[in-house]
Amino acid sequence: MASAMVANGDLSAVKFPAPATGRVAAVYSEVQNSRLDHALPLPSVLKNSFKVVEGPPSSAAGHPEEIAKLFPCVFGQPSTMLVPSQLGEFPSGQSLKIGVVLSGGQAPGGHNVISGIFDYLQNSCKGSTLYGFKGGPAGIMKCKYVVLTPEYIYPYRNQGGFDMICSGRDKIETPEQFKQAEETALKLDLDGLLVIGGDDSNTNACLLAENFRSKNLKTRVIGCPKTIDGDLKCKEVPTSFGFDTACKIYAEMIGNVMTDARSTGKYYHFVRLMGRAASHITLECALQTHPNITLIGEEVAAKKETLKNVTDYIADVICKRAELGYNYGVILIPEGLIDFIPEVQQLIAELNEILAHETVDEGGLWKNKLEQQSLKLFELLPPAIQEQLMLERDPHGNVQVAKIETEKMLIQMVETELEHRKQRGAYKCQFKGQSHFFGILYLILVFSIMFSPYRYEGRCGLPSNFDSSYCYALGYAAGVLLHSGKTGLISSVGNLAASVEEWTVGGTALTSLMDVERRHGKFKPVIKKAMVELNGAPFKKFASMREEWAINNRYISPGPIQFVGPVADRVNHTLLLELGAEA
Amino acid sequence: MASAMVANGDLSAVKFPAPATGRVAAVYSEVQNSRLDHALPLPSVLKNSFKVVEGPPSSAAGHPEEIAKLFPCVFGQPSTMLVPSQLGEFPSGQSLKIGVVLSGGQAPGGHNVISGIFDYLQNSCKGSTLYGFKGGPAGIMKCKYVVLTPEYIYPYRNQGGFDMICSGRDKIETPEQFKQAEETALKLDLDGLLVIGGDDSNTNACLLAENFRSKNLKTRVIGCPKTIDGDLKCKEVPTSFGFDTACKIYAEMIGNVMTDARSTGKYYHFVRLMGRAASHITLECALQTHPNITLIGEEVAAKKETLKNVTDYIADVICKRAELGYNYGVILIPEGLIDFIPEVQQLIAELNEILAHETVDEGGLWKNKLEQQSLKLFELLPPAIQEQLMLERDPHGNVQVAKIETEKMLIQMVETELEHRKQRGAYKCQFKGQSHFFGILYLILVFSIMFSPYRYEGRCGLPSNFDSSYCYALGYAAGVLLHSGKTGLISSVGNLAASVEEWTVGGTALTSLMDVERRHGKFKPVIKKAMVELNGAPFKKFASMREEWAINNRYISPGPIQFVGPVADRVNHTLLLELGAEA
Repeated sequence: MASAMVANGDLSAVKFPAPATGRVAAVYSEVQNSRLDHALPLPSVLKNSFKVVEGPPSSAAGHPEEIAKLFPCVFGQPSTMLVPSQLGEFPSGQSLKIGVVLSGGQAPGGHNVISGIFDYLQNSCKGSTLYGFKGGPAGIMKCKYVVLTPEYIYPYRNQGGFDMICSGRDKIETPEQFKQAEETALKLDLDGLLVIGGDDSNTNACLLAENFRSKNLKTRVIGCPKTIDGDLKCKEVPTSFGFDTACKIYAEMIGNVMTDARSTGKYYHFVRLMGRAASHITLECALQTHPNITLIGEEVAAKKETLKNVTDYIADVICKRAELGYNYGVILIPEGLIDFIPEVQQLIAELNEILAHETVDEGGLWKNKLEQQSLKLFELLPPAIQEQLMLERDPHGNVQVAKIETEKMLIQMVETELEHRKQRGAYKCQFKGQSHFFGILYLILVFSIMFSPYRYEGRCGLPSNFDSSYCYALGYAAGVLLHSGKTGLISSVGNLAASVEEWTVGGTALTSLMDVERRHGKFKPVIKKAMVELNGAPFKKFASMREEWAINNRYISPGPIQFVGPVADRVNHTLLLELGAEA
Repeated sequence: MASAMVANGDLSAVKFPAPATGRVAAVYSEVQNSRLDHALPLPSVLKNSFKVVEGPPSSAAGHPEEIAKLFPCVFGQPSTMLVPSQLGEFPSGQSLKIGVVLSGGQAPGGHNVISGIFDYLQNSCKGSTLYGFKGGPAGIMKCKYVVLTPEYIYPYRNQGGFDMICSGRDKIETPEQFKQAEETALKLDLDGLLVIGGDDSNTNACLLAENFRSKNLKTRVIGCPKTIDGDLKCKEVPTSFGFDTACKIYAEMIGNVMTDARSTGKYYHFVRLMGRAASHITLECALQTHPNITLIGEEVAAKKETLKNVTDYIADVICKRAELGYNYGVILIPEGLIDFIPEVQQLIAELNEILAHETVDEGGLWKNKLEQQSLKLFELLPPAIQEQLMLERDPHGNVQVAKIETEKMLIQMVETELEHRKQRGAYKCQFKGQSHFFGILYLILVFSIMFSPYRYEGRCGLPSNFDSSYCYALGYAAGVLLHSGKTGLISSVGNLAASVEEWTVGGTALTSLMDVERRHGKFKPVIKKAMVELNGAPFKKFASMREEWAINNRYISPGPIQFVGPVADRVNHTLLLELGAEA
C-alpha cells in the first residue's frame, strides 16, 4: 500500500497524440496503460526465416462435390504450414496493399489481430499500406476506410472492443455487392484482404476469395476465427479468439453468484449463458466454477430428453441437497437449450404451422390441432411461456425460440414439480429460484428489448493474456499467408497448450470447414458449427465430476482476470483438454 | 506464457482440511489461493505497544438532548485514539470471550474484519474465545454460533462473501429480543460483541451497548462500518468497507459498456447504479470512467430540478453530441434519483392520498383530484411508468418508489423530447437508448421480481487490496477497543490516504453519528446518512470536468480489479479527494 496516494484513473493517465479519428486523445486507466506495453511474444517460427509448406489437397466437412461446385477456383486447396528454413522464400522489399475488416459482434482481441498483421507488414514488407475498412463489410462495399499507421494502432494494443475501425453485420452477397467489393479492390489496388469474423463472415470471406479469383483479380482473401461462442474451430484451428476472455469473465460472475448462494443459503440461481446453439461457454464455465447442475444442450439432444426429464433431474438434485441441509445452489443453462429438446422443436413446428393458418380462439379450440404429445407439453408449460410462444413471432410468423426465457421457464417448472413432491412428502423445504442471463436479455411486451450489460462484459472486456497473444499471432500469420499469395484460407495457429514460442502457424482451406445447407431450393455453403463433443475430453471430465459437484459444494470462484502474476497466463480448460494437455 | 500447460481452476487447486462447517473441503481457484496468502499489513501503532487516549466528550449529529435521553449510559463518550507508548497498558495474559456478527447485506471484506479481531485476540489475549453468531442478529437471539478457530478462519482470508458465519437482516428491537440477547451474553459469558453492519445495524449495536450497560452486564459492544453504498461515514470514519471494491467492479462494467458504445457507435446507454438514497457510487464511478452525463441526486434536489429539467439536460447533451457526429453515449443514474426530485415526491404523496380513498375510474376522472402541477407531471410520464405508479403498492398501499425503473423512464422521456426537437429541426439523428441496472433489477407484473446479477458482482466479489487491509485493521482495532473495556463505539481507522503503516486507529462514539427521527409519535435514533456534499472535493472535481466529458469522449476503462502489480493498491477517488490527497 506504499503507493496509496494515487487514485486509479485519470490522474495517472496518459494522453496520446490525437490521431485523425479513432481513440481521439484517449485517456486511459492504469490497467489500460499497463496493457499497452504488455509484450506480445511471437511463435519462434515467425521470428526467424521460414518457408511455407503445403499438405495434401483438402476436401469439405460435408458434401464435398457440392462445395467443389460452389467454389470451383479455391476448393481443395491444401493446408499450409510454416517451417523454419535457412532461406526466407519471400521476395524482400516487396510492399503490399492490404485491407482489414472486422465483421459481426465484438470479441476480445480483435484489435490485436490488426496489430499483428500491421507489425508483419512493417517488419517484412516495408512500404506496405494497411487499410482499415470502417464499420464492417459495408466499409468494403462503400470504400470507407482509414489508412492505419503506428500512431493510429498503438492505443488499441491489448485493448477491448472493436472501436479501432468498428464492425458491422452487413454481408457481401448479391452480385451487385460483389461488384462493389471488386471496385474497392481495384480502386485501392488491394493485394489482399483480411476478414476477421465468425462462421458466416468466414464463409463470406471464402466467397469473396472465390469471386476475386474467378475475375482474375489479384486480391487474396484470408479469414480469421472470431467468436466468443467457441463454436468455430477444427483440428487446425483449435479455438476461436474471444472465447478464453469471455468464459473467464462469465466464470468470475458465476463465482460471485456462488459466493452469494453460499452466504445467503436460500436461493437457487439459474444462470443462462451465451453461446448460441452450442454449449461450449456453459461447459467451460462449469469446469472453471463447479456448479451444482449444468445442462449441456448437446447431451440433452443426444439422449432425446424431454422437458419433463430435465425438470425432474433438477428437482432430484434439489431434493437430495435438501436432505443434506443445502437449500441453495447454482445451475448453469446454455442459451440454446430449448433448441436441443426434440419435443419442444416438434411443438414449435406445429405451432408455426397452426398459427400461420388458424385464428387463435379464446376458448382454446385451436389447441386440438396439436398432436397429442405436443398438446401435453404445451399444457405443461407455465402460462407466461405459453404466452411468449403465442405472441412472439418473427417477421415470417415463426415462434422466436431465442426469446424464450429458458431459465425462467425452468424455474417455474421446477417449482411446480417440487410442489407435487411436497404434497406427497418427498420434499420439505422452500424453493426460491432466481434467474440471471449472462448474455443478451430479452424482455417482451412493454419493455421492448433490453440488453443485459453482461453482453458487454463478455464481448468488450480487456482481452486475457491468452487472447492477446493468440490474436497477435493470428494477425501476423494472416500477413504471411497474404504475402505468400494464399487465398481462401483461415489463419491457423496451433499447439496452443505449449508456450507461445512453440505455437505452430499456418493456414487452412476455408472450404475444408464447409458443408452445404439446402435453402430455397439451392445449396448454400456454411461453415459447420463445432458442437460440444460428448466423447471429447472437456465433456468427459465434466461428466466424471458432476455428481460430486451436485451434492457437495465444490464451488470455485475464479475471481477477476489477472494480467500479471502467476495466474495471468492460464488458458481455458476446454482448449487444454481438447489438446490433451490435461488428459 | 511459459506456464500455459496448467489450466486455471481445479487442477492446481488446494484442498483444505475440512472444518466442522464452513467452507467444507473448499476447492479454490488460483486467484482465491493467491489471495489467501496475500499479506495483510497492520498500521504501525498496532504493531508496537500503545495506549488508548481519549478526546473531549462527544455530542450527536442532531438533537443531542434527545439522543442523550435515549442513551443515558453511553451518550457523550469521548472518541478514543491509540498512540504509541513505551508501556502497553492492558493486562497481559487476560483472555476474553467475544462474539462477532455479520448484519445485513454482504460487502467485500467482511471476512477480513473477523480475521482481524481473531488475530488480535490470538496475539494479545491468549486463550480467548471468538464466537461467530450464525445468520446475523438472529444468531445472537437464538444463541446459534460457531467457535472460530485458526483452521476455520484461514480459508476466508481476503475472500468475498459473508459465508463464514452468514448474515441476516433481523433486528434486536423488542424488549423480548433484548432479553434473548442478554441471555446469550450471560450464557456465553461474553466480554464483548462486535457488530459488523450498516447504519441500522450500528444503531442497533449502540442500543445493545446501552442495554447491556444499563443492566450492568459486562458485555461491551463495538460496531464496524459496512456498506457498499458509502453513505456511512464521518470525520473519524472516512469510508465504509466494501465501497472501494464495489465501485471498482461497477466501474469495470461501465468501462466495458463504454467500449461497446464507442465500437457500435449508435446507442445511448443509461446505467442505473446502486447506492440507495445517496449518489456516492454513481459519483465515484463517474470519476473513474468519465461518462458523458452523470446525474447526482443530491444536486438535483439542491437545485430543485424538475423531471423536465433533467430530461432537457440529457436531450441538450445528446443534440450537441449529434452535431459533432457522436450518436452514442453513456449516462449514469443513481438508484435514488427519483426521490430527489421535489415534484415527483409531491406527485407520489398526492397519489398515495388519492388511491387510498378513491377508486380509479377508467375514464380518469380521479386525476382531477391531483394538484395542477402534479397532474401536469403525471401526464408527462410515459404510460408504462404511469401504470407502475398506479399498480405497484407496498402493503400499506403506498407507491413503491424504489421499483420505478428510472433509467427506462428517462429513456422514454428523452425519446419524446428528441422527437419534439426533430419536428422543429433542432435534432436530426436517431436516438436509441439502452438501459442497464447495476444493482437489483426490479421487473413488474408477469416477471415478478428478478435480481440482476450485478447485485452479486458488487457485493460478493473478492475484496480489493484496500478493502482487505482496511477491514483487517477495523477488526484488529475492534479487538483493542473491546479489550480496553470500551462500549458503544464504532471502530475507526483513519489517515487512509497514507500507507497502511501510517493509518490511525481508534473508536468513535456511535451516539455522535446519530440524530433522531419522529416515528409513531416517538423519537427514534438513526445514524445520519452521509450524502454527497456539493461543496466537497469529489463533487467539485466531477463538476469541473463534466462539460468536457459530455461533449468529448474521455471514456476510461478501469479494467478488472488487479491484485498484484502497480495498480493493485490504488484507492478510490472519493476517499482520496475527501482526505485532500488529490486536492
